[in-house]
Amino acid sequence: VDPVRLRALLEGVRSGAIDLDRAADELRRLPFEALGEVAKVGHALATRVAADKAAEVVARVPGALYHEVARAVSVGSPPPSGRGEVAVVAAGTSDLPILEEALVTLAHLGVRGRRIVDVGVAGLGRVVAVTESIRLAQAVIVVAGMEGALPAVVAGLTDRPILAVPTSVGYGVGLGGFVAMLSMLASCSPGVAVVNIDNGFGAAIAAARILRAAEAA
Amino acid sequence: VDPVRLRALLEGVRSGAIDLDRAADELRRLPFEALGEVAKVGHALATRVAADKAAEVVARVPGALYHEVARAVSVGSPPPSGRGEVAVVAAGTSDLPILEEALVTLAHLGVRGRRIVDVGVAGLGRVVAVTESIRLAQAVIVVAGMEGALPAVVAGLTDRPILAVPTSVGYGVGLGGFVAMLSMLASCSPGVAVVNIDNGFGAAIAAARILRAAEAA
Amino acid sequence: VDPVRLRALLEGVRSGAIDLDRAADELRRLPFEALGEVAKVGHALATRVAADKAAEVVARVPGALYHEVARAVSVGSPPPSGRGEVAVVAAGTSDLPILEEALVTLAHLGVRGRRIVDVGVAGLGRVVAVTESIRLAQAVIVVAGMEGALPAVVAGLTDRPILAVPTSVGYGVGLGGFVAMLSMLASCSPGVAVVNIDNGFGAAIAAARILRAAEAA
Amino acid sequence: VDPVRLRALLEGVRSGAIDLDRAADELRRLPFEALGEVAKVGHALATRVAADKAAEVVARVPGALYHEVARAVSVGSPPPSGRGEVAVVAAGTSDLPILEEALVTLAHLGVRGRRIVDVGVAGLGRVVAVTESIRLAQAVIVVAGMEGALPAVVAGLTDRPILAVPTSVGYGVGLGGFVAMLSMLASCSPGVAVVNIDNGFGAAIAAARILRAAEAA
Amino acid sequence: VDPVRLRALLEGVRSGAIDLDRAADELRRLPFEALGEVAKVGHALATRVAADKAAEVVARVPGALYHEVARAVSVGSPPPSGRGEVAVVAAGTSDLPILEEALVTLAHLGVRGRRIVDVGVAGLGRVVAVTESIRLAQAVIVVAGMEGALPAVVAGLTDRPILAVPTSVGYGVGLGGFVAMLSMLASCSPGVAVVNIDNGFGAAIAAARILRAAEAA
Amino acid sequence: VDPVRLRALLEGVRSGAIDLDRAADELRRLPFEALGEVAKVGHALATRVAADKAAEVVARVPGALYHEVARAVSVGSPPPSGRGEVAVVAAGTSDLPILEEALVTLAHLGVRGRRIVDVGVAGLGRVVAVTESIRLAQAVIVVAGMEGALPAVVAGLTDRPILAVPTSVGYGVGLGGFVAMLSMLASCSPGVAVVNIDNGFGAAIAAARILRAAEAA
Amino acid sequence: VDPVRLRALLEGVRSGAIDLDRAADELRRLPFEALGEVAKVGHALATRVAADKAAEVVARVPGALYHEVARAVSVGSPPPSGRGEVAVVAAGTSDLPILEEALVTLAHLGVRGRRIVDVGVAGLGRVVAVTESIRLAQAVIVVAGMEGALPAVVAGLTDRPILAVPTSVGYGVGLGGFVAMLSMLASCSPGVAVVNIDNGFGAAIAAARILRAAEAA
Amino acid sequence: VDPVRLRALLEGVRSGAIDLDRAADELRRLPFEALGEVAKVGHALATRVAADKAAEVVARVPGALYHEVARAVSVGSPPPSGRGEVAVVAAGTSDLPILEEALVTLAHLGVRGRRIVDVGVAGLGRVVAVTESIRLAQAVIVVAGMEGALPAVVAGLTDRPILAVPTSVGYGVGLGGFVAMLSMLASCSPGVAVVNIDNGFGAAIAAARILRAAEAA
Repeated sequence: VDPVRLRALLEGVRSGAIDLDRAADELRRLPFEALGEVAKVGHALATRVAADKAAEVVARVPGALYHEVARAVSVGSPPPSGRGEVAVVAAGTSDLPILEEALVTLAHLGVRGRRIVDVGVAGLGRVVAVTESIRLAQAVIVVAGMEGALPAVVAGLTDRPILAVPTSVGYGVGLGGFVAMLSMLASCSPGVAVVNIDNGFGAAIAAARILRAAEAA
Repeated sequence: VDPVRLRALLEGVRSGAIDLDRAADELRRLPFEALGEVAKVGHALATRVAADKAAEVVARVPGALYHEVARAVSVGSPPPSGRGEVAVVAAGTSDLPILEEALVTLAHLGVRGRRIVDVGVAGLGRVVAVTESIRLAQAVIVVAGMEGALPAVVAGLTDRPILAVPTSVGYGVGLGGFVAMLSMLASCSPGVAVVNIDNGFGAAIAAARILRAAEAA
Repeated sequence: VDPVRLRALLEGVRSGAIDLDRAADELRRLPFEALGEVAKVGHALATRVAADKAAEVVARVPGALYHEVARAVSVGSPPPSGRGEVAVVAAGTSDLPILEEALVTLAHLGVRGRRIVDVGVAGLGRVVAVTESIRLAQAVIVVAGMEGALPAVVAGLTDRPILAVPTSVGYGVGLGGFVAMLSMLASCSPGVAVVNIDNGFGAAIAAARILRAAEAA
Repeated sequence: VDPVRLRALLEGVRSGAIDLDRAADELRRLPFEALGEVAKVGHALATRVAADKAAEVVARVPGALYHEVARAVSVGSPPPSGRGEVAVVAAGTSDLPILEEALVTLAHLGVRGRRIVDVGVAGLGRVVAVTESIRLAQAVIVVAGMEGALPAVVAGLTDRPILAVPTSVGYGVGLGGFVAMLSMLASCSPGVAVVNIDNGFGAAIAAARILRAAEAA
Repeated sequence: VDPVRLRALLEGVRSGAIDLDRAADELRRLPFEALGEVAKVGHALATRVAADKAAEVVARVPGALYHEVARAVSVGSPPPSGRGEVAVVAAGTSDLPILEEALVTLAHLGVRGRRIVDVGVAGLGRVVAVTESIRLAQAVIVVAGMEGALPAVVAGLTDRPILAVPTSVGYGVGLGGFVAMLSMLASCSPGVAVVNIDNGFGAAIAAARILRAAEAA
Repeated sequence: VDPVRLRALLEGVRSGAIDLDRAADELRRLPFEALGEVAKVGHALATRVAADKAAEVVARVPGALYHEVARAVSVGSPPPSGRGEVAVVAAGTSDLPILEEALVTLAHLGVRGRRIVDVGVAGLGRVVAVTESIRLAQAVIVVAGMEGALPAVVAGLTDRPILAVPTSVGYGVGLGGFVAMLSMLASCSPGVAVVNIDNGFGAAIAAARILRAAEAA
Repeated sequence: VDPVRLRALLEGVRSGAIDLDRAADELRRLPFEALGEVAKVGHALATRVAADKAAEVVARVPGALYHEVARAVSVGSPPPSGRGEVAVVAAGTSDLPILEEALVTLAHLGVRGRRIVDVGVAGLGRVVAVTESIRLAQAVIVVAGMEGALPAVVAGLTDRPILAVPTSVGYGVGLGGFVAMLSMLASCSPGVAVVNIDNGFGAAIAAARILRAAEAA
Repeated sequence: VDPVRLRALLEGVRSGAIDLDRAADELRRLPFEALGEVAKVGHALATRVAADKAAEVVARVPGALYHEVARAVSVGSPPPSGRGEVAVVAAGTSDLPILEEALVTLAHLGVRGRRIVDVGVAGLGRVVAVTESIRLAQAVIVVAGMEGALPAVVAGLTDRPILAVPTSVGYGVGLGGFVAMLSMLASCSPGVAVVNIDNGFGAAIAAARILRAAEAA
């Protein structure tokens, strides 16, 4: 199922434009439709689901699971395939929900993810400590809010492609993640490309595409 | 040599902060320094070089070539290596300089690039005509100005990773490429990640990293 | 009745600046006033009405109907007149409320509307499938959020005038519909003109004016 | 020929990315290609051409004319067809180039245009004086800079569709036409839709589509 | 008492930073302090007071009155003095709270105000009808949201100084009154000056200063 | 003559859209037209005229004078009338051209102006020194760039109406006067109203209207 | 403990991403970890804590105190050390929470703070009255919202380093503190540097670093 | 002499508003006036002076020197005093002019500066190599463009106060230094405060104030 549409469905649920029964119906019928990139038969994933909405969906859709920190609902998940893995790096406690959204999405796509946390630009010792771990991956997702400097630092540590996810953490002049996003784009670090604010889901899709391209080569 | 620094050097030349002799000196000494990702011994690349500055550099640095549309100077270039290739897609005549900057950079990195032009969202026939060609690549760079819609369309045609480059073509409300960039980020198309405005160079580096990750896997 | 004033009245209700009795009074007296463009005697239309406010109005104003998805209240509606029709096209589930607002407004103005949904730039097959249907209309309203690329694609399919309505769907860098709006304006697609964010009402008024101009010609 | 491409060609000329001979070649071959909406065999139109560039094109392309105030080059022009006409209204001397761009484009499309100038919101007497003239048209293009209020006033005078063109006249807080554009979109005047800043060309295309829809009905 | 400080006091109440008893204390002591421009002994005025807060203040401060539409609390009010008056003009129902804030403030300052409503740029007949009434005033306050065009129109009708108040009415591209404000500033209408968004209070202070300057002359 | 139109005429001259002869013609005929607020028979004023353009106008229009710092051309000027005067206050050397534009405009309108310069918020001694001088005026124009704080300080020194003119002095984060303008609007200082960036002309018109209102009272 | 991380922890609590028990655990373990700059063994500080969250933390963490106006929780606090002190200046009642956040942070770092309030640019008498008090400090923190002009005034009174804290007080065009922040940066006042909006905490850290540098010299 | 005024003077020179003789006069008379913070008798400093203007000033003012990279003119300079020093750190070649502006200003104020260059976030080895050097200073100025991440990294290396200077290096989404500036403010790094874009002069003044506060303590 097209992930954009799935997200739209759940957004409809959240805003009240679509009632629960209709949404659950549509979710239940997903396996019988021609499915696209993300979902395989029996598989579905929706992100940005509030806890109360998730509880209703889980109660109505057999096999549905709620991933609390990631705020995602998944139905079915394949075992990991292929040899590669994606490192998912984040600096602070506040970035964890987006990091988990990326990891849940990778798992749903059958891609191994490696969680690397507590990595901030103000503590270079910690950065050095995880360098080897980062270098083991075929692609790296870097989740960062505030000033968005972490991807530039990681780009100096590895020659793998890097997907930067700005987050809306912080207040004041952070402008809801906008400054982190612009900062990541402005830095011109080699090999870094950027996705939408808080879009751990999109970064995981892109990373999975990179790994598949590697396996197909 | 670190591409950011190389660019800074040439920017210094352009603005007059660094005089030509010093810049040429520094360029000439590059092979004897420890070189980083982009350049190998004997190889160097600089982008955004105006024709008159380029002429002076070419006259002083043996082996330097000026790529006119791409506005890039290269010194030495390896033969292509590996099996994969990168498709570089652009819609309009005005996007060609950025498309060429990406292609020159890929060539300099020893990566094959495939030029696919004249592909606009208002002419679906042409889009369909190049679909097969796009699907042959391991990664796709999409260069687009105006409303920046082309990457979303291409993302529906292939499951390879896509690097979107917004361009500063256009006038009025385009805000120097800002609208195209925000539009690419906002579209949430699966597998699309974005680099800075007019940054064909950065997209090529990221694409080359993807191909290397594939070859190392 | 001037639609701007009617909207202001309901906004006063929503914000609490005007109490319900006064608003209902004013609505009830509408048929006896000199009515302007939108409403004929016995006819009135208000958009952006929350469900609870609507229930009160419906209970007090004889003949008032609440259109739930469109979030509009109408009083009386003429049968369709004239031969032409307006196609109203939208991509995603989340754009449906604005599409319905446009359709309810067209109906209220006695203009036939044709609903065409599930048309996204990432699925060209679906776009091709509805091309004939779009070409039957004298004018086309295109409702799109995210990156706002759909009007440019539709402009390539028909030579009718196109009214683009950006929607505030999405999050992060979408800026509440602002990016979609700027993208539509920047695209310079021939024949496309743009109305305010989420303004299905305004697009319908403009489309009705186009059909009337055709009939008067 | 696709107007966007034609414009891109001329932009290439202006920026120096495309040399004159190649541009003239491409312009000369235009009649033999499959032509799109704007140009018929033997007909071509390019806007935003500086006087010196225009002189070279006129010297090389037989039949090419330069419209000085509109800054447009046309090759061939059909006689007006159909019965309808488009009123093109502007307030100040500074808006004249955009008004003329719209009129030249209309003429090139075989559509009659009516020039109505010196109409400002601060002089209501003049507005009243041209009301009858405005009401004769099937569609109205309103060109306005500064605060962009004129379209809202015109919308109160006629029930025809109105295309508003913000212009980049003025200084200080006008933000290069941005304020006029936002103002036109924010006004929610019934029947008004907006095109890009200074885009008299686009407004004319849209107006011509409206007249054709009328004639086809 | 300095109006900025008084406003800050009430804002403290609203946000909970200052408790009610302390605020009421401070309000009660106002007459015994050295009072500034706005308040005379026994007089005080606070704007932007929510109904529930106002009820508590009114219950504790003898002589305090709540002006519901204006959302203002006043304590004592002088009889009007001087011969001049200020016209306060607004277009729509939604602008009324700000118009009333201006009128309550004028009354509190002992200045006569004249309420002129339902004056929109899309209905020139109504504008003409109130021209005489506007011309009787020594200064004019114009309250307008949406596209903010009304002050430019009024400036064409009178040679008195005009104070424009943008309002945050509307949605979408209105940006919370920002577009109206920029539009008023960009219009360069002779004799128009602008105050902050929704700041009926500030416009009234400025108008009162104008009348006093006249009386002192 | 309508000052907006006069300015548009000169802008046309500056941009080359209107040739000199036509402009001079139009300027020469001004006295015989029905003249509006600014100009009386024999009188005309144009601002923002570059030195070279001004020289040509002065050479062709009898009686035309060029005010160099103000960058204004005037034709004829009445002797001052009335008893009141307007203080025009500026902080820095860079604000002088706008201060002079205001003074020339006042002189042209027959209003006395008083020049008060070198008044900055970082030097309170100087502020205190000019307080008496400021208090003599019936209205005060305050010209300030950078952070735009001067009007708030002046508002604490006098109870006259204050017209604040933000200037585009400075660099970096000043955003071409935008920050000064927003700062002046945000300060909520009692009695302060704001005109467009660098618009000394508009402030003078508003101040003259205030003095006339006083004299008519 | 790194203050950024501590803040992130509390933000997790506020948003519900981290439950209370886990947060309290982590807070309790803080003394046994290697602590960084702010906290010493037994000491911890968290800012921006809502009253209800604070109550829970205070109930679970021995020695925790809630500072109500500052909205901060502290655990342990050293006695002041060193001879210097920091003046913390604010204009209005609404700025007090940020002023108190700075003072609590200073106290927690063992630095003496001096509270100077009710200092506004519109009342120069009060500014003069506190000049001596300001001059006694080694560093000055100036907290100001609205137009952000106070730091420029203070910079004229002392030759000590000044840290400016913009606050989000106000409405309309203040843009949530953004205008005050830009205004402070634009003013180019000698010796003034700026921190994030509402960041009294950050200003206090910077001021403490200044005093330590003085003591180490 | 007040540095703001001095800068305004030179800006007047640059823009042509003030002629050279008058500027040179004013510069020559500086020693005899009461001088403020920056300049002592015989001393003066002006920044942002283009080479050609500087040549004229140097030719007319005895003792004037032009610092080419810093683009500054100084007249007289004291020997360094005090024991402390300020480290001035920059990443790239393009940031050097601002770094030099800071160093020249420090020298003019009699403060020792230490130049530390080639320090970028993408090369942690180099950062580690200069850590000791940075820790020797009493205050640190960090000059950085692009994404503005360097101050956050430096804040993790030293507990001295840090003054961050965003630079306008780069293109595309960097927005002329705006992104670097917002990024520095958003990062909330402890001890970091920010000055205006490209304002090496202001950072040096602030750093000198810090050192003086240390010496006075």
